Amino acid sequence: MAKMTTGLTTLLRSRNLSSAKKSFLHTTSILGAKNPKVALIFSGCGVYDGTEIHEASSAMVHLSRHEAEVGIFAPNMEQMHAIDHTKGEPMSVNRNVLVESARIARGKIEDLKDLNVKDYDAVIFPGGFGAAKNLSNFAVEGDKMAVQPAVDKVIKDFHSAKKPIGLCCISPVLAAKTIPGCTVTVGQDTDTDGKWPYAGTAGACQSMGAKHVNRDVGEINVDSDNKIVTTPAFMCETAVHKVFDGVGKMVEAVLKLCKS
Amino acid sequence: MAKMTTGLTTLLRSRNLSSAKKSFLHTTSILGAKNPKVALIFSGCGVYDGTEIHEASSAMVHLSRHEAEVGIFAPNMEQMHAIDHTKGEPMSVNRNVLVESARIARGKIEDLKDLNVKDYDAVIFPGGFGAAKNLSNFAVEGDKMAVQPAVDKVIKDFHSAKKPIGLCCISPVLAAKTIPGCTVTVGQDTDTDGKWPYAGTAGACQSMGAKHVNRDVGEINVDSDNKIVTTPAFMCETAVHKVFDGVGKMVEAVLKLCKS
Repeated sequence: MAKMTTGLTTLLRSRNLSSAKKSFLHTTSILGAKNPKVALIFSGCGVYDGTEIHEASSAMVHLSRHEAEVGIFAPNMEQMHAIDHTKGEPMSVNRNVLVESARIARGKIEDLKDLNVKDYDAVIFPGGFGAAKNLSNFAVEGDKMAVQPAVDKVIKDFHSAKKPIGLCCISPVLAAKTIPGCTVTVGQDTDTDGKWPYAGTAGACQSMGAKHVNRDVGEINVDSDNKIVTTPAFMCETAVHKVFDGVGKMVEAVLKLCKS
Repeated sequence: MAKMTTGLTTLLRSRNLSSAKKSFLHTTSILGAKNPKVALIFSGCGVYDGTEIHEASSAMVHLSRHEAEVGIFAPNMEQMHAIDHTKGEPMSVNRNVLVESARIARGKIEDLKDLNVKDYDAVIFPGGFGAAKNLSNFAVEGDKMAVQPAVDKVIKDFHSAKKPIGLCCISPVLAAKTIPGCTVTVGQDTDTDGKWPYAGTAGACQSMGAKHVNRDVGEINVDSDNKIVTTPAFMCETAVHKVFDGVGKMVEAVLKLCKS
């Protein structure tokens, strides 16, 4: 057993970012050269201060099933704060967005500043408060928000290159701010049934110059002109398999737009 | 916008464990009274020091689709260590297993010491090194390992009550140690193709008195006598959708055993 235990330890210690920087979720030998290349942008690890874990995992499962070649990126910066998810309260020690995002990426992650639009056919932003706290300051400033410069650049670069952009949950505010006049959904604009606690986000998207359309979880909106695909995901209180299915539809629509 | 931003903040601050302790992944109004109740046991958040995130999320998606009522638990204890997942190296500040697990559970989690076998029809352990570092010390001691007393009690309680136990990835070592003579899979017992870096784990299960059967990712083993269902998941280098599907088969087999 000593040998096996040593093996576990050696494997753990041998992992490092420099080797991870060259790697993808899948190897090209599995996927072949013609499969779409999709960049996933994370904002931490956990719904209240980072990327919503199930939205991220769902995107990875669907991209994997469609044999996309995936590169995962996150900004190398301090989070707005770290939240104790048992209490919903800030913790005493802050965390780094890239380092926490690596937990979802199983270590295979790159600094967002190294993402080049030429290397990918599409980009997808899962949700979670990290999109509103780390990738932008929407959670604090609302429709007066600023988008992190590196994130702003990525969205504008993919849009200019006419490459599709997928966003879910709260992340569509990033497109609403960055791409004037685009159409997005963040779910419902009115919390009529108590299941849409963040319904005010729809109005904020409109205040920032976007058009908002109401969609239920499991539905998507496709803005064909801007190649922007959005789905509500966990903007509502819902069952996790419905989020999985909605994210699946978003991934499919993004991949379809890669070929158009 | 001030109102909406305040709403986000209030909602975040109002979350606390005492309210979460009474809640499940789904409400009974969606599920009805006859759906199986399944306890999920987490060991942190991240493959190298806690629960493997995609195995946990996959289990939650499949349980949700089958309309199971889910309660999530983790031990309230310090981790063995916290690993920087970009480097595979220990971080300077350690973390708490329950607090980190809450990230995957979206805050809806209970202390493992409060899990009562009478309240659930089955229990499922996703994998990740947390099972070998926090729920047991397998990563250090190999087949001389000890299982955390609260974990040992849960497995023995469900086994004695003839209620099914699902485990994936490295977690089957917990059953191999705790249930004498049970049959499990942790994938392949030989790393013939370079895709099974932890193949020595199979021998360790046998050293501890269990029978080991080779299974590929996407396959399961059902020990009908002991009601133990196992699947390799990320014990091999593989695509994430194959792990999702294997975990799905494990969940289905566990739910089927609930009715037998």
